[in-house]
Amino acid sequence: MSVTAAKGFTAAGIAAGIKENGNPDLALVVNGGPRLDAAGVFTSNRVKAAPVLWSEQVLRGGQVSAVVLNSGGANACTGAPGFQDTHATAERVAGALGQSAAEVAVASTGLIGLRLPMDSLLAGVDTAAESLSPHGGEKAAIAIKTTDSVHKTAVVEAAGYTVGGMAKGAGMLAPGLATMLVVLTTDAEVPAAELDSALRAATRTTFDRVDSDGCMSTNDTVLLLASGASEVRPEQAEFAEAVRALCADLALQLVRDAEGASKDIRIEVVGAASEDEAVEVGRSIARNNLLKCALHGEDPNWGRVLSAIGTTSATFDPDELNVAINDVWVCRKGQVGEDRSLVDMRYREVRITADLAAGQETAVIWTNDLTADYVHENSAYSS
Amino acid sequence: MSVTAAKGFTAAGIAAGIKENGNPDLALVVNGGPRLDAAGVFTSNRVKAAPVLWSEQVLRGGQVSAVVLNSGGANACTGAPGFQDTHATAERVAGALGQSAAEVAVASTGLIGLRLPMDSLLAGVDTAAESLSPHGGEKAAIAIKTTDSVHKTAVVEAAGYTVGGMAKGAGMLAPGLATMLVVLTTDAEVPAAELDSALRAATRTTFDRVDSDGCMSTNDTVLLLASGASEVRPEQAEFAEAVRALCADLALQLVRDAEGASKDIRIEVVGAASEDEAVEVGRSIARNNLLKCALHGEDPNWGRVLSAIGTTSATFDPDELNVAINDVWVCRKGQVGEDRSLVDMRYREVRITADLAAGQETAVIWTNDLTADYVHENSAYSS
Repeated sequence: MSVTAAKGFTAAGIAAGIKENGNPDLALVVNGGPRLDAAGVFTSNRVKAAPVLWSEQVLRGGQVSAVVLNSGGANACTGAPGFQDTHATAERVAGALGQSAAEVAVASTGLIGLRLPMDSLLAGVDTAAESLSPHGGEKAAIAIKTTDSVHKTAVVEAAGYTVGGMAKGAGMLAPGLATMLVVLTTDAEVPAAELDSALRAATRTTFDRVDSDGCMSTNDTVLLLASGASEVRPEQAEFAEAVRALCADLALQLVRDAEGASKDIRIEVVGAASEDEAVEVGRSIARNNLLKCALHGEDPNWGRVLSAIGTTSATFDPDELNVAINDVWVCRKGQVGEDRSLVDMRYREVRITADLAAGQETAVIWTNDLTADYVHENSAYSS
Repeated sequence: MSVTAAKGFTAAGIAAGIKENGNPDLALVVNGGPRLDAAGVFTSNRVKAAPVLWSEQVLRGGQVSAVVLNSGGANACTGAPGFQDTHATAERVAGALGQSAAEVAVASTGLIGLRLPMDSLLAGVDTAAESLSPHGGEKAAIAIKTTDSVHKTAVVEAAGYTVGGMAKGAGMLAPGLATMLVVLTTDAEVPAAELDSALRAATRTTFDRVDSDGCMSTNDTVLLLASGASEVRPEQAEFAEAVRALCADLALQLVRDAEGASKDIRIEVVGAASEDEAVEVGRSIARNNLLKCALHGEDPNWGRVLSAIGTTSATFDPDELNVAINDVWVCRKGQVGEDRSLVDMRYREVRITADLAAGQETAVIWTNDLTADYVHENSAYSS
């Protein structure tokens, strides 16, 4: 299950005392080899947390022996002292495992602008190292939760090898990744460069197209580690598809657990002149607060879809736009189409199809509705 | 008072039966001359309502004798029949006043995608024409309200002439104008080209920098009409400043009445390399739902300001960013600054200062907090 589904990996999840409420807050994932190939994708936010700056450096080498992740603090906007904290954490992991710190990736999530309680964290690293188990994947997934209501894991069994993973993320979900920490593991034999291209291709159409609230985190990290323990060397396209399927599964789990949401909204843009334009239009619709409120109220308010499309630079003629909500074409050629009362909005999933009538390209963006619960979760306490 | 403060103008506001609840919903503003110079600025949304398409054409001539405005329906996404409705409305006004329809501007606000009840509307035009009065400005301002809780008017008395106006707008407030209908009138003698440059300069730093919810309307219209009745020909810079001051006053009234808001948030970006970059950063902060929720909860969460800045392409070094909330520099050089408990968040106005430390340019953007009331207002019924 989770990051320990693939052979060669052990993991642990413990309560180190970083979170004041005593919940699990420290996870360790260790690649026992024989290979240590790895790839990573990080937030495109220019304000990057210390662990992101550190792990970007580690991943340049293409080799990762362990990943240590903490919830309870983002270690972002903490300057040079914060970076030293990340470095010390990697060193402690390396010491406990007899590895080099240069191959230890670090990821953090929680409140920005606070130093981590390093005494508790470093002692926790030792405890986690002692608790490593080939069945530790579940506990690791639990320890990285912040406002997540459930922990998220997924596994894809491929031809002779396995790809598994865990993810956390429930708010600040936006393009260029979301506030998400994701660790994927596989026992396939895949060199770092191929891991990198598979991971980039997969995140581009999965995690990057989850846009729950338009807010981009300082800490997003998606890592893919390969142990080679299955001794299977998969064909690149097949491996890339396994990674994509895994990422798609986890990304949808993030959408379904988004803070305060009552609807999961699938926006499919079709008939676009280019994929980039399809994505631009999808994001514009996904970020329209008025539409997100309307869908929360089960109101198939297609006018708000059209106004969102109208703010983009994509190729379209306003008099040729078509919009379907839950497969009812409520807007045809820029005007009233089928009767909006035909749209059944009772279910959690809402499907919007926006046809730009300008080409053949498509893209799918996922978002959530905007609810009083979202406001409450994000105003009642610092997060 | 409103659009009738300047000499030469009459106005009316009546209930034509467009709104189902019987509230006033039709306003008429007439320029009695001697001059009919006018300028207009319209939504930059590419999905434009029929009255916007019509009025853009009218304004190309630089002469406007009357403006007819309705609430209760946006007449957007209504295709050729909707455009004919707008045309018929202008013709009816022209007939009632003995003018040319080519000099009658039309503006509408309300739900997108519905045809207007033309029988009621056209009869209402006749009633409004009969009710025109040099004291009708207040009633006109009331008739254009939608979800506005109060009507908005302002007057600037300049040297020998007056500039006055009315505005409506409470949601869908965003750049490239908001869902706002604004009519400004003056009795100064100003040719159309000068009106145009004064109006564009004024809206660029006032209405265009109100970004309540990031949603851009299909119907935004700001008109400036000059009667010349004062026989004063003002110096251009002085006139431009009077128009700017009037627009700033009305824009702030829109912010203060934004749907469901409990905070008015003034975001001042300083130290920017260019004004465009200052605006880009200000908008990014203004549109960060997580920050807007935090401010609603009176939480001076500067980390969310930094993450918003980090998503822009503006010139800055993350380790040089400074952020003040209500004048307390809670973030200095990208790290924790003064104690956040010093920030007094009890009042409705919140001031955020973001110092990019990259130049000398500045910009101010206004927004609101994100509240459960906003969600309720925009999910409980179609608007």
